[in-house]
Amino acid sequence: MPVMWTVKVVGLGVVALSLSLELLIWLIRRLRPGRALNEVLFFPSEIACVEHIFTPPSPYSCVCSLPHGVETSFSRLLRHLLSATSSLDLCVFAFSNMDLCRAVLVLHSRGVTVRVLTDKDYAAITGSQIGVLRKAGICVRCDVGSVYMHHKFAVVDDQLLITGSLNWTLTAVQSNMENVLITKEPELVRPFIKEFHRLWLHNDPARYLSSVDQKLAHVFTRASD
Amino acid sequence: MPVMWTVKVVGLGVVALSLSLELLIWLIRRLRPGRALNEVLFFPSEIACVEHIFTPPSPYSCVCSLPHGVETSFSRLLRHLLSATSSLDLCVFAFSNMDLCRAVLVLHSRGVTVRVLTDKDYAAITGSQIGVLRKAGICVRCDVGSVYMHHKFAVVDDQLLITGSLNWTLTAVQSNMENVLITKEPELVRPFIKEFHRLWLHNDPARYLSSVDQKLAHVFTRASD
Repeated sequence: MPVMWTVKVVGLGVVALSLSLELLIWLIRRLRPGRALNEVLFFPSEIACVEHIFTPPSPYSCVCSLPHGVETSFSRLLRHLLSATSSLDLCVFAFSNMDLCRAVLVLHSRGVTVRVLTDKDYAAITGSQIGVLRKAGICVRCDVGSVYMHHKFAVVDDQLLITGSLNWTLTAVQSNMENVLITKEPELVRPFIKEFHRLWLHNDPARYLSSVDQKLAHVFTRASD
Repeated sequence: MPVMWTVKVVGLGVVALSLSLELLIWLIRRLRPGRALNEVLFFPSEIACVEHIFTPPSPYSCVCSLPHGVETSFSRLLRHLLSATSSLDLCVFAFSNMDLCRAVLVLHSRGVTVRVLTDKDYAAITGSQIGVLRKAGICVRCDVGSVYMHHKFAVVDDQLLITGSLNWTLTAVQSNMENVLITKEPELVRPFIKEFHRLWLHNDPARYLSSVDQKLAHVFTRASD
């Protein structure tokens, strides 16, 4: 009988051990889903060719005069953006950087759902890429309710947050002191997803125009009283 | 004998359970050191009186016409700033908000080591509080090497990061769409501490003036050749 009991105890031990291991793995995954991605980029970025990021099979085939094969803050930013596979929600004050515009267009052509929210005044300035995005069929909404829609954040695939002081302009990337924080920390990503959703609905032209219609109807009703 | 074995198995189970619990608590503490603080604030902030944040014993003694006892994005930001007990490193493009200036002055008067790095052009505009900070004896340095020193971040006690799109102005707080991210995540805080240190040394007037002296000496040497 003691032999049988020993077998049972050893069996119980093996089961306990495997359960503990499973619990451990589950805990690590549960508690640290975004541990692999907490990154900070500082600008101005070193100026280098980014052609190989858009056309990966030919890293040195570009013949421009810029340095090639150099990893910079800007190339890191582009890589994070281009990692999108399902959605990109972009909420940015000034958008005139042509490489960033190209990245957004590439994502759109790949079938990624792109939504862009921007400032009403800066959308119309010379060099703004907002018109280019609109022409390509990307859904763009302009903020109408505040002095400035001053955000500079993007949410990739509802799980990766890119935020900071950097406007999407050439000056910001190449000349200013700027920061961009990249994280998958759910406690930080979730509020930005929620805020984007709120602002997106708030600046729905249909809603806005309907509100204008109601005001006009009210004016006409009062005028006819 | 089977009774003794049962006692042993139950004992083993209790030990395994207590060990698992200890492991669980250790894991939670080890994997989530900054879990207690990951916060995102959105602006424009509701406008409310913040007097009780500066003078805590009298929450409703202020007689101004603003709403009292309301927790807003701005009051949260002030509380995080005022939590500093040893140091505040501030790196901000535009600083004209008088409540934020008051908070920095309060910290300075409490003996907190305050260092302010700001943009050379915006430091001199009407309404800038940089002169007030300097007059109070706070060490301020202006960035001289970039088009804009466009950062808007603060590091409290070398462990709490406050960063985002928000300049320290009244318009940004009360009228713009803005975000401020607050975290103790070491992987995010550390790079900002390092960058502040780099910029602080880089913009040391002594170093800058010495470099100007060297250039002048070089000019004079060449002129006398």
